[in-house]
Amino acid sequence: MDVGTGSGILAVWAAQAGARRVYAIEYTDMAKHAKSVMEANGVADVVTVIQAAVEDVELPSTDFPGEDSTKECVDIIISEWMGYFLLRESMVDSLIRARDKFLKKGTGIMYPSHATMLLAPITDEEERKINRNEYNGAMGDWQDFVEATKGTYGVDMSVLDSHFEREQREYYLLSSRWAEFKPSALLAPPQIIKSIDMHTCTLADCRGISLNDTGSAFDFEIVTQNNWEAEGPISGFAGWFTVDFKSRDDEEGMDAAPKIIHPVHLTTGPEGGYTHWGQQAFHLNSCIPLISGETTRLKGSIELKRTKENVRLYNCRIAFQASRRKNSEPPGGTLVMQSNVIEHIYQIP
Amino acid sequence: MDVGTGSGILAVWAAQAGARRVYAIEYTDMAKHAKSVMEANGVADVVTVIQAAVEDVELPSTDFPGEDSTKECVDIIISEWMGYFLLRESMVDSLIRARDKFLKKGTGIMYPSHATMLLAPITDEEERKINRNEYNGAMGDWQDFVEATKGTYGVDMSVLDSHFEREQREYYLLSSRWAEFKPSALLAPPQIIKSIDMHTCTLADCRGISLNDTGSAFDFEIVTQNNWEAEGPISGFAGWFTVDFKSRDDEEGMDAAPKIIHPVHLTTGPEGGYTHWGQQAFHLNSCIPLISGETTRLKGSIELKRTKENVRLYNCRIAFQASRRKNSEPPGGTLVMQSNVIEHIYQIP
Repeated sequence: MDVGTGSGILAVWAAQAGARRVYAIEYTDMAKHAKSVMEANGVADVVTVIQAAVEDVELPSTDFPGEDSTKECVDIIISEWMGYFLLRESMVDSLIRARDKFLKKGTGIMYPSHATMLLAPITDEEERKINRNEYNGAMGDWQDFVEATKGTYGVDMSVLDSHFEREQREYYLLSSRWAEFKPSALLAPPQIIKSIDMHTCTLADCRGISLNDTGSAFDFEIVTQNNWEAEGPISGFAGWFTVDFKSRDDEEGMDAAPKIIHPVHLTTGPEGGYTHWGQQAFHLNSCIPLISGETTRLKGSIELKRTKENVRLYNCRIAFQASRRKNSEPPGGTLVMQSNVIEHIYQIP
Repeated sequence: MDVGTGSGILAVWAAQAGARRVYAIEYTDMAKHAKSVMEANGVADVVTVIQAAVEDVELPSTDFPGEDSTKECVDIIISEWMGYFLLRESMVDSLIRARDKFLKKGTGIMYPSHATMLLAPITDEEERKINRNEYNGAMGDWQDFVEATKGTYGVDMSVLDSHFEREQREYYLLSSRWAEFKPSALLAPPQIIKSIDMHTCTLADCRGISLNDTGSAFDFEIVTQNNWEAEGPISGFAGWFTVDFKSRDDEEGMDAAPKIIHPVHLTTGPEGGYTHWGQQAFHLNSCIPLISGETTRLKGSIELKRTKENVRLYNCRIAFQASRRKNSEPPGGTLVMQSNVIEHIYQIP
């Protein structure tokens, strides 16, 4: 089964790879085009395109010799369900429901089988300053407008100042941005903030990142040598994801499920080059300088929650403390400086 | 009554201009801000902000001395309801319903009182070519994709060629564009394609432009002198609108309604400089050259219809024949050339 087949390319590949039957599910009118693609590629007898929400699909009773004539279950679910920063769009919900309804228990395989979310501190002053300047520009324009409206037209709009400011702040300063970072923009190795086993995850697991998740805490150390050359400052964080196609490692599937001989790894991180997912950049309001001969530590946590207004969109809360110590000091040693807690809540647009 | 007050500025002005009572209607949450604006400007006792669709509003019984204690009617309806090319957004429907329900019969005044739509042929090769090139670029990318998908991945997507082509054509070639033309871009004086008297128009009148409307036919003549200097070619048409604030000229209001001493005229055309409405540019697929010493005539019609999918959006059909004659020939005289009917159906996005 291909959940969200779109133009149907994964379903064609499944048929070409030898699947004896493929159900290609697509909610939108692209389903019509997917049907043409199946015919044009000579796999219409193997691939059944179904236009429906996967939750509403009923498969026919199995008609393969040697199987019980119960409702059919599938051996493999393939799906390209990943959104920006993995979870945006929240399509994973449909995938989990499809898994629980249609995938063979114990032996069924999910492709991708595993998903991992990562976070790293970045330097990206150019983009950070562009956003900051656009925010300042918008606020300047607003002040001009308020003054003109008062002076020329006799109407006082300044009562809307704080509302306007909040709106601009959310748009320019507290929205994450699509980015394509070079590996050199990363100031420390990425840390895993969420791991999902597609065979065993629950709807709740995939709703976001909660402070109870093991990965939600991060602790980055950025060492700046004495022979320091313009590196940094810290502009914020980048988030991205990887997915894997490998064997089931859950208890249920451990012995029963087929082993995958050639595992495949897809990264959307800076090390992997361009993907349409790119990375999400979370910029700080103020950058944090890196000081020659010192180690800067960013210790904090990340939370990811669906917005109340739209289940497909997310807010991302990043809170941390920055501290500095001489490179010669051990991690818990004497501090040169420690900041207050820095906290931003971003919208992922 | 201010229909769609937004931040409330028209309602404040109405109060400042001496209205004894103002009902400011706003459907969205901007109504909350409008209330603050009324308070900040000391007119909260005159202006009542009502958050509702104007169709659902019920005014209280009148409590002014000397008036019958029936449901209140208003003397003036003000509204900034105009969209791109006047009708886009279709807010005029609500305005007409508000008029029929709340405006005093015979003496009530609509501000603006009249709306006029205009069309003129334009030269705009730069933008026309940009769109054409983007279309060509998108089609080239698609061909590359289809070949790579076939050659490298063994899946034939060419069955979607015509669907993809249509989608790109609609987006790049058959969508009108926001534009800010200089008066010099106009190749002939604009012609009125629709006139609306806000006091007497019906819902049907404002649904679009039908071929039965007097204005729907156009007939432009572009005279190119012998001492011709790079003028033209014809790239397409520009459409825009004007609105007026002047006295009622309908039979019912003729004697009864107050006369407006200082009429006001607002144009969104090239002669009026920047407005956020700008003009809508309808580009041709191929330009039409202007020939030295000849007169080019564009005779045809325009239709404007709401789309089936979204009542707030419009399709615009422009069909015409181009012909050329020597400048010395009269309008009906011998032709140098006559084109086939050129017809485009544009989406106004």
